[in-house]
Amino acid sequence: MRAVTVVDGRVEVREHPTPEPGAGEVRVRVTGAGINRADLLQRAGFYPAPPGTPADIPGLEFAGTIDAVGAGVDDLAVGVAVFGVVGGGGQSELLVTRADHCARVPDGLDLVAMGGVPETFVTAHDALVTIAGLTAGEWVLVHAVGSGVGTSAVQLAKAMGARVVGTTRTAAKLERGSELGLDHGIVVPTTSDGALDIGALAAEVRDVTGGGAHVTLELVGGAYVEADVAAAAMRGRIVLVGTLAGGRAQLDVLSTMQRRLAIHGTMLRSRSATEKAAATAAFARDVVPLLASGSIKPIVDKVLPLSNATQGYDLVASDATYGKVILTPSP
Amino acid sequence: MRAVTVVDGRVEVREHPTPEPGAGEVRVRVTGAGINRADLLQRAGFYPAPPGTPADIPGLEFAGTIDAVGAGVDDLAVGVAVFGVVGGGGQSELLVTRADHCARVPDGLDLVAMGGVPETFVTAHDALVTIAGLTAGEWVLVHAVGSGVGTSAVQLAKAMGARVVGTTRTAAKLERGSELGLDHGIVVPTTSDGALDIGALAAEVRDVTGGGAHVTLELVGGAYVEADVAAAAMRGRIVLVGTLAGGRAQLDVLSTMQRRLAIHGTMLRSRSATEKAAATAAFARDVVPLLASGSIKPIVDKVLPLSNATQGYDLVASDATYGKVILTPSP
Repeated sequence: MRAVTVVDGRVEVREHPTPEPGAGEVRVRVTGAGINRADLLQRAGFYPAPPGTPADIPGLEFAGTIDAVGAGVDDLAVGVAVFGVVGGGGQSELLVTRADHCARVPDGLDLVAMGGVPETFVTAHDALVTIAGLTAGEWVLVHAVGSGVGTSAVQLAKAMGARVVGTTRTAAKLERGSELGLDHGIVVPTTSDGALDIGALAAEVRDVTGGGAHVTLELVGGAYVEADVAAAAMRGRIVLVGTLAGGRAQLDVLSTMQRRLAIHGTMLRSRSATEKAAATAAFARDVVPLLASGSIKPIVDKVLPLSNATQGYDLVASDATYGKVILTPSP
Repeated sequence: MRAVTVVDGRVEVREHPTPEPGAGEVRVRVTGAGINRADLLQRAGFYPAPPGTPADIPGLEFAGTIDAVGAGVDDLAVGVAVFGVVGGGGQSELLVTRADHCARVPDGLDLVAMGGVPETFVTAHDALVTIAGLTAGEWVLVHAVGSGVGTSAVQLAKAMGARVVGTTRTAAKLERGSELGLDHGIVVPTTSDGALDIGALAAEVRDVTGGGAHVTLELVGGAYVEADVAAAAMRGRIVLVGTLAGGRAQLDVLSTMQRRLAIHGTMLRSRSATEKAAATAAFARDVVPLLASGSIKPIVDKVLPLSNATQGYDLVASDATYGKVILTPSP
């Protein structure tokens, strides 16, 4: 089978032996596999594949049809359309994964575009619902609102009856956010030396929300975390999902106590197989029906054949995309 | 009635009108009322009493017997022994509070000493159990282990089957901690300039616990919070309860994500009446039976008459006490 392969800091398509599904596993003929930032790190040699996944085939999500089933799998059969998150190996013609890491794709959905759904929607749903317990009527603050997780979070939060204030450094991304239902967009204010203006950002969020954000999806990190605490409502929940702007922040301990905030760190890839199965089940239960009804939809910037992986990776690295870049083995 | 009264930065006993219980309230004839650090702040003018409590009578906890009941109170009658947390007014001969902020004191317990139980045990139980979800077999890290909340937390954690590592700046307090069941005590390591040695503290906690603390009760704040993150186990929960060492800290966002930590800020005094009733009910359900059986006990340093309030406050301020200083109207 052909698969995107990391070779000396670049990606190219190479032949690999066809993998066989073991007990509790399925083999999927992949129709679409999104490119994520972690793939860029893996290409650069900084993100070793976890145990049990191919060492040199990147790809953290997939959609496709079941091609073969291993022993003990009785709820999925050959031909069933599925999608899910994997620890690696998604950008390939064929992929072996655990049956309980697959969610069924409803009829009528585009099986290429669905390959860009699981990573961002599982991450956003896990953070907003499973971790933060978002409820209807609450305000959600989403940074990097034009990113894959950002656009997924806006759609999910709106579908749940919440209201969303989003931030971005690019005004154009706010317009697209509005199409997804974003209630209020903020182009992040900066100080004279170009740093994030923490006070101004927090003040605008508090003003728009009338008392602060109940749930914050923190995709940027660094000084944004300080703004999150300053912008949070009483009993607000802040979920730390990304650290593009830096792995350290100042924490206002007294405000965190006075507002009784909860700050949750999360990371999907390092979880146990059982925990990933639970996140997949929650995604299948809460998110897939919204995809089926059209309440939420994948935002796709570009679909490229596997052989154009380098172009796809460079597009994601450029930060100029809006939505997912998806590789497909059968264009 | 006589009550400790804040007058121009000092405390003295003064006469006050006898308060009458309203609907849902009871009047308690106080037998004991612990002194807490917040009382020192109130004496100094920095901790205004919340609405609904006497403006100038300090005291955040009490034990006593019901002296009168207001309309609609049918589960408590005159003569019943109760204790609880109040927003203020505890250090008095008589106190009016909500009936659902009272827990019954089991027979046979010392009603003076019980006046020093609620604030620390409700705080420790709420933090360890309600917020952090402590379970048997887990490791708890308790800073300021000789403090009122610290000794309460050690006893509660041990009674629940958890293991405890405690820190203090005073070696003598560790010996007493051992008598309460402390599994391992650490005199906090300092750098050459006297600051907390964050790395050394975290390394010792990780070593003792074999992988990090599952639950951390943070009573000190400041740089200790950084040590908490470095010392936490996977999926560890850190509860921020105090800020004696400073209201700001450095947060390692990446470690918080990688270990999927939860950092909870909490404060008892600012909660709504309904939330305080819930905390009281949890205390009555989980903690009071342990007091009745003798599994946990109040640690009392000194009992003083109301008229010696100044001596009591100065004792608490000295940081030389081990356990509670309790004022009693009827010595």
